[in-house]
Amino acid sequence: MKNPVERIAERLIAGDSQKAILVCSERNRRYFTQFPSDAGALLITAEEAYLLQDFRYEEAAGYSAKNCTVTGFTNLKEKLVELAQKHGVKQIYMEINKLSVAESRIYEKLFAEHGIETVLDETLDNAIKDQRMIKSPEEVAKIEAAQAITDAAFQHILPFIKEGAKERDLALEIEFFMRKNGAENVAFELIVAAGKNGSQCHAVPSDYQVQKGDFVTMDTGAMLDGYHSDMTRTVALGKVSEEQRKVYETVLQAQLAVIEGVKPGVLCCDVDKIARDIIEKDYPGTFGHGLGHGVGFEIHEWPGFSHRDKTPCAEGMVITDEPGIYVPAKYGVRIEDMLLVTAEGCRSLTKSPKELLEL
Amino acid sequence: MKNPVERIAERLIAGDSQKAILVCSERNRRYFTQFPSDAGALLITAEEAYLLQDFRYEEAAGYSAKNCTVTGFTNLKEKLVELAQKHGVKQIYMEINKLSVAESRIYEKLFAEHGIETVLDETLDNAIKDQRMIKSPEEVAKIEAAQAITDAAFQHILPFIKEGAKERDLALEIEFFMRKNGAENVAFELIVAAGKNGSQCHAVPSDYQVQKGDFVTMDTGAMLDGYHSDMTRTVALGKVSEEQRKVYETVLQAQLAVIEGVKPGVLCCDVDKIARDIIEKDYPGTFGHGLGHGVGFEIHEWPGFSHRDKTPCAEGMVITDEPGIYVPAKYGVRIEDMLLVTAEGCRSLTKSPKELLEL
Repeated sequence: MKNPVERIAERLIAGDSQKAILVCSERNRRYFTQFPSDAGALLITAEEAYLLQDFRYEEAAGYSAKNCTVTGFTNLKEKLVELAQKHGVKQIYMEINKLSVAESRIYEKLFAEHGIETVLDETLDNAIKDQRMIKSPEEVAKIEAAQAITDAAFQHILPFIKEGAKERDLALEIEFFMRKNGAENVAFELIVAAGKNGSQCHAVPSDYQVQKGDFVTMDTGAMLDGYHSDMTRTVALGKVSEEQRKVYETVLQAQLAVIEGVKPGVLCCDVDKIARDIIEKDYPGTFGHGLGHGVGFEIHEWPGFSHRDKTPCAEGMVITDEPGIYVPAKYGVRIEDMLLVTAEGCRSLTKSPKELLEL
Repeated sequence: MKNPVERIAERLIAGDSQKAILVCSERNRRYFTQFPSDAGALLITAEEAYLLQDFRYEEAAGYSAKNCTVTGFTNLKEKLVELAQKHGVKQIYMEINKLSVAESRIYEKLFAEHGIETVLDETLDNAIKDQRMIKSPEEVAKIEAAQAITDAAFQHILPFIKEGAKERDLALEIEFFMRKNGAENVAFELIVAAGKNGSQCHAVPSDYQVQKGDFVTMDTGAMLDGYHSDMTRTVALGKVSEEQRKVYETVLQAQLAVIEGVKPGVLCCDVDKIARDIIEKDYPGTFGHGLGHGVGFEIHEWPGFSHRDKTPCAEGMVITDEPGIYVPAKYGVRIEDMLLVTAEGCRSLTKSPKELLEL
């Protein structure tokens, strides 16, 4: 497979030297070049791609940025114009979902002064979205490497889940383990929600102390090389009631049915329905969020994977499968894997066990 | 002092019920309401301020958001129009430095359909900037509380600085200490740079192991209640050379001269010059960045506090004073306090010692 810069250039520029792409957002600059930095810009022309970095990052970018020529500058805007003119560029695509109104005006004026049209429609955003939605084998390997840390962190945390353990301390212990074991960062603010806090799907870890009989929901993920993993497991401290067990088994049944149902061509909303129908039958109104989301270079990307999303599943997508049942003021259960859509169906990238653990 | 919502309303709306302010950015929504959430909007009218939150955050916002009425919604845009119409709003100010081009178009079209003008110039951004640049006593207290954690972390890390200690592990130890001791998060990605890595002012902690005779520069800060602290200290492992000592003393002299020089009315660029002149005398070209920056609800805010910034210092500003000397391929020294501009001069909010520690 060609590299990401070559692919986007093929899609939007197709050898036309009058066209260029200007990527300003931090995430997309890193996606294309693998180089993280909080400033700079990536200019992709038909002949060459330039990563512009100031003195703080120029040297480091020279060592590690991929798919581009690293160029220093003292004035970013002047350098962009100089390079665009060198290649005879007449039209530059920009990211309107990321670019601020104020910045867009500066660029539009600057380029217009040099006879260059700034394309401020959704062309570039959509092209990047379509490209990033389908993962290359290298990208899948990075997501799996991030998930391996997440799986290890799950095994690591189990002995810490005891009566009196605070949600906040458990979340911190998981994060420290991940970062000591190679994660660049956590993939998002980790969730540990025990007992009745589990009924909030976006609970923030609190000082609540785990009690016997509590479900403990842990929604965790590591970030590595810019790629994210995302996994939820719900475990119990001690024996659960029959009611709790039935809730758990229902969520698991829905989660597994999704794995059976995902294959190229099936619409995201129809997959969402598979899980939703199973849960609605006995627990109507308790599954208050979408089934999942695309994951990769951002923790939430495309497709949306909810009841509203009519995107067909396609080979190379990585999506989360995370149904849940939330019983207000009582407890919640959520089970989440990441699925890679394959030619035949899908494959879970998540290795942690899913049978109910009663610790 | 009035609360931040009342102050911005006074500045921009001044009782005119046809005018309103729509704050969409995450940072500014939190600044005005003290409620953190990754979605929603704050609509400030002459009569009332509404924080709009979806089902995930509505309950929590109801408990803890300040200076506003919390309102749930199923469709954010419809709810905004409904509230604007209820108050007879004809003109809505928005943040063009934060709002994306794509979003701005959606809002512009929506409001125009209901006879409301969207003001997409810098009025709101500038008003927020001017207001946030001057800290209230409550804000200063929060910055000091964040700094107290940072000072404690400095004392905590000193015994860990030994031969063979890795930069990365030291950075992680500081972060864990801060978060276990009440910090909501770190204020930025912490920097620990030892030996020749210290010559990069934006070094990323690496696997480099501290050696005898190394300078170790630690640029650290905690975040608490949304407010940031920022401190740099450079310590040595073992005895330093006379050359190193002279570099250290020169940076310290520059840093202290700034504290003497800051007072209301003095231009930021003139304060930068105080430090720069001292360093340039014996170490020309080694101080390659601005003297500092405003700090508060963001780690980098206003004023710029560099040789280009002509903002006059004003009572209530909190700025960093962080000169440095960077000797490529050898070492670097930076010393940084946060200064609060007072009626008479300034006061350092940083308590950690600044004399050279040879551990």
